[in-house]
Amino acid sequence: MQGNVIFNVDAKLSTMNMSKLPKLFQVELDRRTGIPRRYKRKLVRRLSDLRGFFSDNKMVGQMLERGKNPIIYEVYEIPQAPSEGLFSLACTVLRPGKIGREYYFTKGHFHAKEPASEVYVGLKGRGMLLLQNREGKIAHLPLEAGNVVYVPPQWAHRAINTGRGKLVFLAVYPSSAGHDYGSIKKSGFAKLVVERGGKPALISSRSLKR
Amino acid sequence: MQGNVIFNVDAKLSTMNMSKLPKLFQVELDRRTGIPRRYKRKLVRRLSDLRGFFSDNKMVGQMLERGKNPIIYEVYEIPQAPSEGLFSLACTVLRPGKIGREYYFTKGHFHAKEPASEVYVGLKGRGMLLLQNREGKIAHLPLEAGNVVYVPPQWAHRAINTGRGKLVFLAVYPSSAGHDYGSIKKSGFAKLVVERGGKPALISSRSLKR
Repeated sequence: MQGNVIFNVDAKLSTMNMSKLPKLFQVELDRRTGIPRRYKRKLVRRLSDLRGFFSDNKMVGQMLERGKNPIIYEVYEIPQAPSEGLFSLACTVLRPGKIGREYYFTKGHFHAKEPASEVYVGLKGRGMLLLQNREGKIAHLPLEAGNVVYVPPQWAHRAINTGRGKLVFLAVYPSSAGHDYGSIKKSGFAKLVVERGGKPALISSRSLKR
Repeated sequence: MQGNVIFNVDAKLSTMNMSKLPKLFQVELDRRTGIPRRYKRKLVRRLSDLRGFFSDNKMVGQMLERGKNPIIYEVYEIPQAPSEGLFSLACTVLRPGKIGREYYFTKGHFHAKEPASEVYVGLKGRGMLLLQNREGKIAHLPLEAGNVVYVPPQWAHRAINTGRGKLVFLAVYPSSAGHDYGSIKKSGFAKLVVERGGKPALISSRSLKR
């Protein structure tokens, strides 16, 4: 469980070479940052990894051309082999910031293998979870220090940092759930979360120019 | 998700009348106590509910005869129907105290339906998780404010409060996992956690008089 191996590409758990027999373990969360003191893998998502996800594609292109490629979020993973009854853990650190008026967010995904729930425990900061089911129904729930969010099967979920500090949360999910990012990249969420008068507001994703 | 319905008997999730379609929800954890502000069911475990679990049966009998029946722990549950891919949540508040030299603990259980993992997030206090597999192998891990414990399938688990304040932790587990308390009540854990010189110590469960 120790290590600092960093991949900044989509790496699927199913490709990982791990024992089928998970071990007992415990890990401390750093009091100041919320980050697990040990983890198996760290994913780094930069702006370039989220190309096509933010509504203002033009601004993203300009930033990248100018060599500006900020880290949007990092994920500290403690995955298990994708076997029935096993859970993976991941701690996400979502930076504060905006692309235009749109707050930084995680890509968002459906689970590739359903039914699979996910539980989030908010550790630091203030934000929300934007959810959308396969029928296009949309919902949102607060995700912040000291709350717990339950995401049932069939709901795509995206975290959004609407605060001034980092948004840090722990996720627990079946190790076999997998990630379907494609559906979200293709169709997008029907709503965006933008700053309006200093506060977060949900607007239709069609109302912002692309 | 709201309510204060209290049962202080073993109630199985599978007997509960709940919709098969779980809803999205979020719940705040009280900052001071760690207890979810909303929950479905509260279990109260008193000394009388743990008769036969502590090593000093004689003392337990004497206490109960004298009308002393302290609360050992409370569990605030947000269960889901026992369907594949759903998770139940439970927040346990384990009081500080001892029966003789033995620290207060939860009954401990195997999961009735395997494979089923469980993840604990320590919210308040200081204690440990005592674990034992079907082959009798024993292990222990810290469980305390700010850590996360992973319990893989096939490990019975018991929380023990070795601190001076309440031990509060959140558990995430498959809603279909169920609880097998019988195996533990029958065979017991091979180790006990007792106070020795003001500190917790693991001793063989045969070394204390019954």
